[in-house]
Amino acid sequence: MHSDAGAVYLDYNGSTPVDPLVRQAFLAALDGAVGNPSSAHVSGRAARAAIDEARSRIARGLGADSSEIWFTSGGTESNNWAVLEGAGGAPERSHVVVSSIEHKSVLQAARRVAERGGSASFVDPGRDGRVAVDDILAALRPQTRLVALMLANNETGIVQPVAELSAACRARGVALLCDAVAALGKLPVDVRELGCDFLSLSAHKLYAPKGVGVLYARAGVALPPFVVGCGQQCGMRGGTENTAGVVALGWAFERMAAGVFDPQPVRVRCAELWDGIQRVFPDARLNGEGPRLPNTLSVAFPGYDGPALQAALSARGVSVSAGASASDGALSHVLSAMKTPPALARGTLRFSLGVGTSAADVAAACRALDSALRQLRSVSAAPPLHTV
Amino acid sequence: MHSDAGAVYLDYNGSTPVDPLVRQAFLAALDGAVGNPSSAHVSGRAARAAIDEARSRIARGLGADSSEIWFTSGGTESNNWAVLEGAGGAPERSHVVVSSIEHKSVLQAARRVAERGGSASFVDPGRDGRVAVDDILAALRPQTRLVALMLANNETGIVQPVAELSAACRARGVALLCDAVAALGKLPVDVRELGCDFLSLSAHKLYAPKGVGVLYARAGVALPPFVVGCGQQCGMRGGTENTAGVVALGWAFERMAAGVFDPQPVRVRCAELWDGIQRVFPDARLNGEGPRLPNTLSVAFPGYDGPALQAALSARGVSVSAGASASDGALSHVLSAMKTPPALARGTLRFSLGVGTSAADVAAACRALDSALRQLRSVSAAPPLHTV
Repeated sequence: MHSDAGAVYLDYNGSTPVDPLVRQAFLAALDGAVGNPSSAHVSGRAARAAIDEARSRIARGLGADSSEIWFTSGGTESNNWAVLEGAGGAPERSHVVVSSIEHKSVLQAARRVAERGGSASFVDPGRDGRVAVDDILAALRPQTRLVALMLANNETGIVQPVAELSAACRARGVALLCDAVAALGKLPVDVRELGCDFLSLSAHKLYAPKGVGVLYARAGVALPPFVVGCGQQCGMRGGTENTAGVVALGWAFERMAAGVFDPQPVRVRCAELWDGIQRVFPDARLNGEGPRLPNTLSVAFPGYDGPALQAALSARGVSVSAGASASDGALSHVLSAMKTPPALARGTLRFSLGVGTSAADVAAACRALDSALRQLRSVSAAPPLHTV
Repeated sequence: MHSDAGAVYLDYNGSTPVDPLVRQAFLAALDGAVGNPSSAHVSGRAARAAIDEARSRIARGLGADSSEIWFTSGGTESNNWAVLEGAGGAPERSHVVVSSIEHKSVLQAARRVAERGGSASFVDPGRDGRVAVDDILAALRPQTRLVALMLANNETGIVQPVAELSAACRARGVALLCDAVAALGKLPVDVRELGCDFLSLSAHKLYAPKGVGVLYARAGVALPPFVVGCGQQCGMRGGTENTAGVVALGWAFERMAAGVFDPQPVRVRCAELWDGIQRVFPDARLNGEGPRLPNTLSVAFPGYDGPALQAALSARGVSVSAGASASDGALSHVLSAMKTPPALARGTLRFSLGVGTSAADVAAACRALDSALRQLRSVSAAPPLHTV
């Protein structure tokens, strides 16, 4: 599943192509549900009904109630909302604790809490990329309002101990945000089993279009609005709903429930890719240890420059990420937090696979990698630095 | 241009159908620009280039520079952003002045400024629905940071004196937000001629899909981010861009420049409709006086209940709005601010036309109105109350 013939797209954690049936439902809503969903006329009611149906599908898929699902413009807004406003209302509870491998939409929002007179603590993971529950609990204060820990890291794919943490947080009366953007579609995501108070999602990581997200908020937990307007979504999130996008996300949940995004074949492809990478470059190292997403490989190529390697692969039609998808050129904050040696972090690529990844794609990616490494090796005056 | 055969859609101010060529460009981006626009690989760069091209089109259409255009999830977010953060940075400038006929995304954001320790003043219009520049200037204080006045009101269509106000605000060193959501496509919108510091737009009011907006911010004026994330849009607005939606809005500007949304034919249809309404119901009254949008009629039907009349029209296939599109059932805050007698406000419908409105649509709407009025009159025990 890729846009150019012959191209190999291995950046599904960056964004996914739209599933064909999701696309169909999306277009049907775009063309059919023209009215403003807040309007009482027949055209508005059609849009409203389509949104309500999507909300039910999503709630069912998450083990939540429809009344706990709020639509946003994406995972970033969902994370901003939860970190800035989640469990809010008590000014004396002004402290947030977030893992330092969270998505930047969580980290930046936590910094904003601090700018606004609250405070924020950042908890590092181990070298394996997993955050220890005890380290988070040690950072709690009497005024802690919210803790954030993602379900799986988008760069390394390492799965985090959210269910274990949620029990401890609940016992302490602290709300927990679980960013499930990277995990959705690859791991089971059930809000009751996770025990989180908030959970964020993004449609474009689940074979639906960009521009739509969800914030799940457990019934009974305080959540003042973040974007205010005409009373849409019960006054919780102002702004005309992105009807077609919401419908598409609802259908993506249907497709997931039908097993279309079954991670098992992806896991097989991912194992093949890792074998192939090691054949091409025996010194390659996997960043992170322990349970990881079935589709994600964060691989260090010691002695190489990640962006240069990414560009060389891109020139060969293979799309991968050099660390996260942020374009600021800085070293990955995730790998830094894991105390990954800079030479390894600099030489890291993220390969993330999806339902469209074929065995032929994997083989083509390995050939391109071999060629790219040879090219970069030949232009280097010195032999590659294989020590770290 | 409507979703059901035989249906007449007269709620273009609520939302517009998507223009056919805009739809084509939207789908091409949806299918072709799959990558994350922040990714450096070929797929990401294609998305980035598509977004940059759209930004240029929009900037050109507004008389702005590309570097002054920020993409949001819609007009509501744009308004929230400008009111909460626009011209921010100086804590002693904590006062905002907004007209009381602004969209609720402006009004609610102004209330939020007050909740956060600042303050907000609300300036009423005259009975004609037009806000007087002097009334706004009288509300300014030394600590006023921002003034908001929309270019045209979405309910009444009455055009507001933005250019006149902007000169006065600039002389006083106060920033001006102009909400141009309702006006775009119906009036010329040039940020230099308007002289505003901020201007907000929504794609789905300009024949493009829901879920995309723009905030124009004049170069040099302070605008701390509202949604924070991975450094997208130069760190000004976090979150993966809604690539296809942004591309669609860019094309809507192209179509507007090509004259496809020419308001002149709409103005003719609108005059025909007003004539027809008066023939059917001679006591009908237009809310507001003076220059108004060429597509908008806010009409009071004394003695009738707006929502009941809207429902009766909807049952006859005609979609109009009862006041604004907000669904809370309250009387319009715009008509209240204009001191419209409650009996008139309660009996008000908004008819808003667009490029797809035909003479046949207008005739059909008038027939349906005649029938709806007769039905409601017959179920009423007493004769309709024609006095106010």
